Amino acid sequence: MPKTRIDPWGAIEIKDYGKVFKEFGLKPFPNEYKKRLDHLAFRRNIVIAHRDFEKIYDKIINKKPFINMTGIATSGYLHMGHKAVIDLFIFFKNCGAKNFFGICDIDAYTSRKKIPDLKTAKEFAVSNLADALALGLTKNDVYIQSKKEQRYYEFTFEISKKITGATFQAIYGTLDLGKISANLLQYADILHGQLKEYCGKMPSITAIAIEQDPHIRAVRDVAKRLPYSFELPSSIYIIHQPGLKEGMKMSSSEPDTAIFLNDKPEVAKRKILNAFTGGKDTVEEQKRTGGNPEVCKIYNIFRFHYPDDKKVEEIYKSCKSGKLLCGNCKEICIKFVENFLKEHQKKYKKFEPIARKMIFD
Amino acid sequence: MPKTRIDPWGAIEIKDYGKVFKEFGLKPFPNEYKKRLDHLAFRRNIVIAHRDFEKIYDKIINKKPFINMTGIATSGYLHMGHKAVIDLFIFFKNCGAKNFFGICDIDAYTSRKKIPDLKTAKEFAVSNLADALALGLTKNDVYIQSKKEQRYYEFTFEISKKITGATFQAIYGTLDLGKISANLLQYADILHGQLKEYCGKMPSITAIAIEQDPHIRAVRDVAKRLPYSFELPSSIYIIHQPGLKEGMKMSSSEPDTAIFLNDKPEVAKRKILNAFTGGKDTVEEQKRTGGNPEVCKIYNIFRFHYPDDKKVEEIYKSCKSGKLLCGNCKEICIKFVENFLKEHQKKYKKFEPIARKMIFD
Repeated sequence: MPKTRIDPWGAIEIKDYGKVFKEFGLKPFPNEYKKRLDHLAFRRNIVIAHRDFEKIYDKIINKKPFINMTGIATSGYLHMGHKAVIDLFIFFKNCGAKNFFGICDIDAYTSRKKIPDLKTAKEFAVSNLADALALGLTKNDVYIQSKKEQRYYEFTFEISKKITGATFQAIYGTLDLGKISANLLQYADILHGQLKEYCGKMPSITAIAIEQDPHIRAVRDVAKRLPYSFELPSSIYIIHQPGLKEGMKMSSSEPDTAIFLNDKPEVAKRKILNAFTGGKDTVEEQKRTGGNPEVCKIYNIFRFHYPDDKKVEEIYKSCKSGKLLCGNCKEICIKFVENFLKEHQKKYKKFEPIARKMIFD
Repeated sequence: MPKTRIDPWGAIEIKDYGKVFKEFGLKPFPNEYKKRLDHLAFRRNIVIAHRDFEKIYDKIINKKPFINMTGIATSGYLHMGHKAVIDLFIFFKNCGAKNFFGICDIDAYTSRKKIPDLKTAKEFAVSNLADALALGLTKNDVYIQSKKEQRYYEFTFEISKKITGATFQAIYGTLDLGKISANLLQYADILHGQLKEYCGKMPSITAIAIEQDPHIRAVRDVAKRLPYSFELPSSIYIIHQPGLKEGMKMSSSEPDTAIFLNDKPEVAKRKILNAFTGGKDTVEEQKRTGGNPEVCKIYNIFRFHYPDDKKVEEIYKSCKSGKLLCGNCKEICIKFVENFLKEHQKKYKKFEPIARKMIFD
């Protein structure tokens, strides 16, 4: 058993990525791939590691199909951190993947104490789905866990037979049954696309945060034991977009740590104005020694979301040189985020009834 | 935690029923009910205990609906012991119940090591279902676990959230995930009839063997925690029809311990001729001191299956008095069983393609 147990539901920040990579057998994401894959998450070191991504890279380069799988099981509204994950999903979609974007309402319900009933989970699912559609996914890219075919549920139970209590405990420790269920659903989410009733055997890619890696280890173990000779699922590891407050992750339960996709533009503005930056104690000092974009929450909004590489580089450099001060930089950021939110929320409004129908009808 | 842990998958014989009753809070089945409920399982002390049967008795007497739920999750073919359970199910059906006879193929697959894949489980399910239809169930009384509606599977996951790992471990010890899944499915089997999508809240009755009681304790605990204010499921406890060999339960993996519903009449004849009886060492001794029907496997075939009470009593008495010797008694039994099997297998042949369609189409 690995010495470092990563808790997929915990809020711990992983400080020492190198150590974790080594312990769990992840590989750093190769520079060659970063250059050839045309998405900011690769160029900007948001994707930092992988397991078996070679198989996927090969499919992309040779324009062959592969499975693109991501799931969202929120107990709240989506924020900009989720947008980054969805953007990456859309990148793989545009590479010609078979798309399985899971709206994981059952998982959200069974694994989260604060969701009192399935109805509540489904209401969040409506919102999450409408966001995903507004961000560019189409109906056909998406499935809803609580609206799946019988084969999917049956497969979840099939998976359960292939995991011993001992293996499970070694990976996760002792879990309540709700979390066990959520795990089984996640394994089914990642693997079911390879069943003959869906796409059949082929490589699959799932982008996850590093603390979700226990699921990948478990699902790869299960994939070997099932009687379908599946390809072992590939994974890439993305860093979290930092929260807006110093030393805090973005969190649905701490609204000021993140810009939510349904924040009113004026709320987002206030959050940006209050965000922690890499600025110095005085304007004079900052002009002289420059800012510190690496730790700056505002810079990270650009890094994770601003499409134009040159502009982001320019912001970085002029912050470093002391030319761009926090006030002006925040103004640029506010304009960018406000515009995005206005556009997004217009689309959201259009997609909400469609999402509601997809989930409740 | 109760001191006696009953293992629902074990093959232990429960010797001291009284002790087990007391420890788990079961009540002996009242004589008044035995007299008023017109089925041999009551009159002949096959039903020995209950939890909350009062509610069901009340519904029967007042001709009000209740849920009649039983499931079969075999890893083989059905034998006469299963027939006794199905007969009892049909009794409740005829009392005006809402019927949920589950063909539990997923459960059978996930909980039994010897079933290598779902396909095999479904093949046994075809046979089990055809038997059930041949014994008098109709299509509408039956559901197949692997062909259920989305709501049923979703409900299974809902249930999982309401069980803590600690409660579960106290009842069952450490289980592999396949058995955990099987349990969740069983709880859903027992409770889902009370969902508004099915019959809505009402009492339910499930006849089980006493070693299945852990499931009933668990499902009653879960029923209280779910947000549906369910009636707590009632249960009655039936003794096993003894196996044909001395001191052995009927077992699918020991073909000579039971008469299977698909045994050729001549095979059944051989099994009966070889069965352990309550006879004495010599004919003379038996004529003088009488036989011992209580321990006799042949007498128990009559007790569990022969419809005519008077005839069974006559056999009992003339065995006791030494008038009816084992040879003659076995002849009567062979005739009865052969006739039953011939009739049954004729019907089975008719229902097999229907069952196959229900499961595989």
